[in-house]
Amino acid sequence: MSTVSQEVHLVARPDGLPTSEQFQLVESDVSDPAAGEVLIQNRWMSVDPAMRPRLSNGQQPINQVISGGALGTVVASRNDRFKEGDIVQHGSGWREYHLSDGSDLDHLDAAGYPETLYMHVLGTTGFTAWGGILITGKLQDGENVFVSAAAGAVGSVAAQIAKLKGCYTIGSAGSESKCDWLRDTLGLDVAINYREGVLRKNLKAAAPNGLDVYFDNVGGEHLDAALPRMNVFGRIPICGMISAYNNFGAISTGVTTLANMVYQRITMQGFVVWDFNDRKDEFLDDMRGWLNSGKMHYEETVFEGIESASEALIGLFTGQNTGKMLVKLA
Amino acid sequence: MSTVSQEVHLVARPDGLPTSEQFQLVESDVSDPAAGEVLIQNRWMSVDPAMRPRLSNGQQPINQVISGGALGTVVASRNDRFKEGDIVQHGSGWREYHLSDGSDLDHLDAAGYPETLYMHVLGTTGFTAWGGILITGKLQDGENVFVSAAAGAVGSVAAQIAKLKGCYTIGSAGSESKCDWLRDTLGLDVAINYREGVLRKNLKAAAPNGLDVYFDNVGGEHLDAALPRMNVFGRIPICGMISAYNNFGAISTGVTTLANMVYQRITMQGFVVWDFNDRKDEFLDDMRGWLNSGKMHYEETVFEGIESASEALIGLFTGQNTGKMLVKLA
Repeated sequence: MSTVSQEVHLVARPDGLPTSEQFQLVESDVSDPAAGEVLIQNRWMSVDPAMRPRLSNGQQPINQVISGGALGTVVASRNDRFKEGDIVQHGSGWREYHLSDGSDLDHLDAAGYPETLYMHVLGTTGFTAWGGILITGKLQDGENVFVSAAAGAVGSVAAQIAKLKGCYTIGSAGSESKCDWLRDTLGLDVAINYREGVLRKNLKAAAPNGLDVYFDNVGGEHLDAALPRMNVFGRIPICGMISAYNNFGAISTGVTTLANMVYQRITMQGFVVWDFNDRKDEFLDDMRGWLNSGKMHYEETVFEGIESASEALIGLFTGQNTGKMLVKLA
Repeated sequence: MSTVSQEVHLVARPDGLPTSEQFQLVESDVSDPAAGEVLIQNRWMSVDPAMRPRLSNGQQPINQVISGGALGTVVASRNDRFKEGDIVQHGSGWREYHLSDGSDLDHLDAAGYPETLYMHVLGTTGFTAWGGILITGKLQDGENVFVSAAAGAVGSVAAQIAKLKGCYTIGSAGSESKCDWLRDTLGLDVAINYREGVLRKNLKAAAPNGLDVYFDNVGGEHLDAALPRMNVFGRIPICGMISAYNNFGAISTGVTTLANMVYQRITMQGFVVWDFNDRKDEFLDDMRGWLNSGKMHYEETVFEGIESASEALIGLFTGQNTGKMLVKLA
């Protein structure tokens, strides 16, 4: 026996903004589990900016299933650790069914929270924001903070953590409706629409006391604007550089203000979420507390069906998501 | 009574490369010491790239003596801490005579070393290099290192420390004769003349195992070339950005490769020498040991007379120094 599974393959490497022709929906026959194996029906797929560099730099093989976060239900198991009905997370999306030896699967105990929260605020993007701003960024209560792409899955959590720590918090986003969400729901002090006016001038006006932490998701023009605003011993955790990902070789707009690194003795540091693995429990304690007390807000932007996955990924770079971008499988 | 002293004033702020018209030699009458005061005849003046930003950003007042490191001899004293003949260092150059209340003076115990060494390898530039590469740069034995402006006062010490720690060490400089010095005297593995060919390509060819530490004195094109070569958890101590100092607002050539900060989880950190003050004794122990065993080499580029001071400063930015740039007073 076997199960028919639709899966998304990368068939050509994007140089710039990905196009739908570079992705192909392929039908595959997935075998029933052999001894030790588990069959998962995926129900949710994660769509993340960090997937983009892998499509160009060779880490994602051509004509194979695209790697990405997924959440699904065990539908057949010959592995003692998993039974039918278990909810699991893994990194072997984008496909409807995943046959695993169990080594790449994490059990999900979703009690008390909608399961999709484990794909964002209680999952990788939430943990990325928490570690990036508190550990890499060494955030102190009451500092002055700027978060770029603050309406994104990571940025929205980083900005809210800054507010929860009593910081004066500025966020940038690419539309008026996103800026309204940043101000009205997340409670940021200033929201800057980076598509309007001159970002450098708007940020200067928004930061009368300078910046102690700039949480960078964007790079390029945003980083160029933030550097002259940094206070002495400022920290710039670099979470991502979405502005560069769609240029061949991830070449950004030139950053010309780096002399401030020495004038203000700034620390800029790139990080990834697994740098914080030993503090996962602390993160979950914090985040559950904030969720339970209604202090952590989130949005999901959901595309329906595996056939919409490439459109969802492209949409990340054209500003179609507020909060977490997800694909819901049938 | 008083003493006639020539001093150098800044009379106009440079936008780009400073010109001699922006400096003026002014004759001043310096009073004899009052109670508690000390009169110093300066004999050496220090000329440093870090002086340049102060000329444009307002830290250096117009029509006043330019601040800068100096070494001199006490010629009259009414202060118990100092007596005639004492050798002292201070930051109140550029003038022939300095009248002080003693609070800005450091006694120099130059026994065993030429006194000018306390203006470079045993002084600020040596300490800057030591702290920048070992503390900020967290250098480990046997790593892969690149130092820009490696024939300069700071760069030449940083590069030699890397070699003393068993590192594969690449240096850049702006002439063939400087590159010869880097290879033949300092023993660097590769010296790159950044004025020849394409720096990015030459650095790539020179660093087959990538870079763990890039000690940056230059910024701009050098930093742009180094970032894609960095290994995971690489460190970039930012000592200076001499390529930017002569552009209005210290605007550098655009750095487009900063996405590597996140891909390789790089740490970039600006620093100044006084960040390391609590480790001065450790630095002096190291440096004296290296000097005594003949393992630390240095050069001095000496301009004669206070009237040559502005020329010496301009010369820093046109590549006229190998090692430390000094002005010898009459």
